[in-house]
Amino acid sequence: MNELDFVREALDDLAVFVRTKYASRATVKISEKREANDLLTEVDLAVQEELVKRIKKVYPHDFVAAEEAGFSRLPDDPNVRAWVIDPIDGTQNFVRGLFPSFGISLALAEGGVPILGGVAVPITGDLFLAQRGSGSTRNGDPIHVSAVSTVGLVRAEIDFGGPWDRPGTLAAFDTVIRTAGQIRCHCAAVIGLCSVATGDMDAYFHVGLNPWDYAAAQVIVEEAGGTVTRLDGTPAYLFDGGHGLLATNGHVHQNLIDIIRPLGDS
Amino acid sequence: MNELDFVREALDDLAVFVRTKYASRATVKISEKREANDLLTEVDLAVQEELVKRIKKVYPHDFVAAEEAGFSRLPDDPNVRAWVIDPIDGTQNFVRGLFPSFGISLALAEGGVPILGGVAVPITGDLFLAQRGSGSTRNGDPIHVSAVSTVGLVRAEIDFGGPWDRPGTLAAFDTVIRTAGQIRCHCAAVIGLCSVATGDMDAYFHVGLNPWDYAAAQVIVEEAGGTVTRLDGTPAYLFDGGHGLLATNGHVHQNLIDIIRPLGDS
Repeated sequence: MNELDFVREALDDLAVFVRTKYASRATVKISEKREANDLLTEVDLAVQEELVKRIKKVYPHDFVAAEEAGFSRLPDDPNVRAWVIDPIDGTQNFVRGLFPSFGISLALAEGGVPILGGVAVPITGDLFLAQRGSGSTRNGDPIHVSAVSTVGLVRAEIDFGGPWDRPGTLAAFDTVIRTAGQIRCHCAAVIGLCSVATGDMDAYFHVGLNPWDYAAAQVIVEEAGGTVTRLDGTPAYLFDGGHGLLATNGHVHQNLIDIIRPLGDS
Repeated sequence: MNELDFVREALDDLAVFVRTKYASRATVKISEKREANDLLTEVDLAVQEELVKRIKKVYPHDFVAAEEAGFSRLPDDPNVRAWVIDPIDGTQNFVRGLFPSFGISLALAEGGVPILGGVAVPITGDLFLAQRGSGSTRNGDPIHVSAVSTVGLVRAEIDFGGPWDRPGTLAAFDTVIRTAGQIRCHCAAVIGLCSVATGDMDAYFHVGLNPWDYAAAQVIVEEAGGTVTRLDGTPAYLFDGGHGLLATNGHVHQNLIDIIRPLGDS
């Protein structure tokens, strides 16, 4: 089995599991991580455990980085072959929300760059897959970014994150918020990024993402024709410790960088 | 047939129609209203035409206010019995978006206060209904607002609206954005408001709503146990020409009013 088939099979199986858990989410055990707005459920842990088990069995020599429970670490050597997992991106939306915007994210990286990845959106049944050089698909059909080229028409997914992200978000994206055609915030990186890949949105913004939040979706956006960088336009390496991320259809990328206030400026 | 049954039947029928149109949305005719971020589709017009036709047939003496095509007017006498229609709230999301957050809204008002209303969300198949004094339902099951009572835990749906709403939005809700537990923006008033009614969100904010945007959802929120006012806490009469709206679970209403900067302040 090649790596992309491995990702497809794992995500298909776990999407079924998460869908079942979502149906009975009133009884799911929830705990807080750093604070009350940073939640962890037993479902996040079960999904991660199953993905780690499968990887260890088939690819025992690869590094594994994941959001939860002792795996939220970066490799000492950023050039190792590394699997990057977010068991549920959008846990808050899993716990509560009329529209269930959350996904399971699994990527394989080499040299700090994702070379293939998949995102499952359990409730819509969507599976996004991409392999470097081979394009992106949604349920097997090729997907492409939008053609929008004017900031005034951009549908911007601005991820406000947790309360700790807000001052930076308001400062960095002030002009974007004032001038973009449309503003949305579903607060799930994989959903925002895959929306850029499908052309449903034109740009996704976040001041503080971790590698597991975007590893899979980065290659999905890029292989759909889009561009993913840090907020100043420099490349986003998964294990460089950087945080801000801008993903666009490519056509509006430089125009948006021009109106983002650099992080750290007052 | 009583009025609530009339609303239920009309929304059920039109949800089927809109679902079909959504499936072929690539071919739907779209035009611009005031500007490029204010869209109108042939589906909005067809839904409104059908609703107006049904109202005129069954309730020929009632006033009709609706978002599109010559019906976007207020009654000279605010005390008349008036039907208030938004054929598709969330037209932008109908046209483009991974999660189809839009709904059909139909309400009956007396004395500027909605006394019953319904919101259909065609893609999820949800039908929200409420009648003053009789509670709110989602697909026939009673719904209730959340119990959250702390701003730091509030899931806030902040509707950034069109570009013309943004300066007011950033000014009025600056402290809310910085301190609320979670921020979402689906940019469809009926979705945000019904999410408050179900307890999926705790508060909904907008600086510039028209009566058709919230007439039905207001009674749905109130009958689910929530509170709906202007941004300064005064009552929201549909035909008073006021704009800002705050809808909450009631428990956090005053706390939020205390941190909203009044409209018009610099």
